[in-house]
Amino acid sequence: MIQRLTIIGVGLLGGSVGLAVKSRLSDCRVIGYGTSPGDTALAMGAVDRWAADIKSAVAGADVVVIAAPVLTIPHCLAEIGPHVKPGAIVTDVGSAKTAIVAAGEAAIRSPAAFVGSHPMAGGSRAGVAMARADLFDGAACVLTPTAATDPAALKKVSDFWQALGGRIVVQSPPEHDRVVALVSHLPHALAAALMAVQEDASLAIRGKGFIDTSRVAAGDPGLWRDIFAANRGNVISAVDALAAQLLTFRDLLETQDDEAVLEWLNVQATRRNKVD
Amino acid sequence: MIQRLTIIGVGLLGGSVGLAVKSRLSDCRVIGYGTSPGDTALAMGAVDRWAADIKSAVAGADVVVIAAPVLTIPHCLAEIGPHVKPGAIVTDVGSAKTAIVAAGEAAIRSPAAFVGSHPMAGGSRAGVAMARADLFDGAACVLTPTAATDPAALKKVSDFWQALGGRIVVQSPPEHDRVVALVSHLPHALAAALMAVQEDASLAIRGKGFIDTSRVAAGDPGLWRDIFAANRGNVISAVDALAAQLLTFRDLLETQDDEAVLEWLNVQATRRNKVD
Repeated sequence: MIQRLTIIGVGLLGGSVGLAVKSRLSDCRVIGYGTSPGDTALAMGAVDRWAADIKSAVAGADVVVIAAPVLTIPHCLAEIGPHVKPGAIVTDVGSAKTAIVAAGEAAIRSPAAFVGSHPMAGGSRAGVAMARADLFDGAACVLTPTAATDPAALKKVSDFWQALGGRIVVQSPPEHDRVVALVSHLPHALAAALMAVQEDASLAIRGKGFIDTSRVAAGDPGLWRDIFAANRGNVISAVDALAAQLLTFRDLLETQDDEAVLEWLNVQATRRNKVD
Repeated sequence: MIQRLTIIGVGLLGGSVGLAVKSRLSDCRVIGYGTSPGDTALAMGAVDRWAADIKSAVAGADVVVIAAPVLTIPHCLAEIGPHVKPGAIVTDVGSAKTAIVAAGEAAIRSPAAFVGSHPMAGGSRAGVAMARADLFDGAACVLTPTAATDPAALKKVSDFWQALGGRIVVQSPPEHDRVVALVSHLPHALAAALMAVQEDASLAIRGKGFIDTSRVAAGDPGLWRDIFAANRGNVISAVDALAAQLLTFRDLLETQDDEAVLEWLNVQATRRNKVD
């Protein structure tokens, strides 16, 4: 039973955690805190109370969810460490986990516990006004325990995201950061690069395929700059892997090896048809 | 007034032309022809009659729409040239226009006329069973006249696609082929390359962004092999332009020039927000 839950950073994700908790967990009081005013979050019912400072926000909380920008999360962890109650569980929603998990394990000490989370949910429009109680329904929610993680805390965080609709996947922080670069950070870079090569004359004839492929390029630029910075090495490797595939395709085209192009397209279409 | 319309190649696009014509043009009889049996097209009401051969299919038609695979269209044009009636208008739906328009202008002689078309509509599932009367609603429909095009024929083809719901854009065949490589053929290559770098562990945590960005990779591989072959040089140039953008991004990341990354993301997000 979670009686008191604190959300630090109440935007699209944090606000959706609040709305989902209020609609799915009974008798849980939600406290919000962030650098922006809490008026919208309060008006939407995403939080019950807005804290004046981060220390009072986490005091007495059974669970703390940090949904601040990815580069800010380690600082939040260091700030709240001395103030969380014994037995409190702290988690976060950051898109890159290695640095955050290291900061969390350093800052949140037994009998409190830290477990890294990454719910694979979001939207191209940021801000609490876009928050939805069903944002996590069916979304993969990655938990990133380490050898130091308390198994009971891991179970509690897993139960929490499942209660909010998430589908639990467990990966180590480095494994998560490597594969999230491929499946989330790379698509954003690709969509932006796809926009960058367009002209007025090409955009004038855009079809549904282009709209789908480029959609994520509308995402919040500051948020994505930080995600790329937080997962720099893995994003570079993912771009290199993608560029190698593209150049192979290009060379097959140039040498008119159209049967090899067909084989490549066949493999990718078959794989894509399995994941919808 | 079109009293008799022939569709050669009755798949997703050809079948949708038939359904749209039957629902939006009054008193137009639709004849279908293709290498597959016409049972499904007849049963769906996409065509009124299935012709036994291509010669009888086009005999007496006011308008002929060739919706065969892109590399097959020039052969269809050469075959029907001697058999279309005086005053007939012939068009097609091929994704690359330069070779098709040259073949059309050589094969279809005054007082018949050829005008190249490319409706930017489709879907990841091919076949007449996926055809829809509203497939062209709001879709850009590119017309690709040349100096040799009869203006009256161009007007008729424009009116035809508008009646089916299309939004007319006029481009020369080479300009169309250059920009369609950027906005349609490149996204397909990118989506396939994005699939190619995924692993089980990355696909296990896929979110909505990945699903959108990779969607077109499910498209029919044979159809796309032919499109890439038909627009080879422009697709290679588009891949090169994309790779250059990606490598610039990669180098900004590596040199930790995160403010330049932000600026690049800002420009692309602003452009993307204008086109939805």
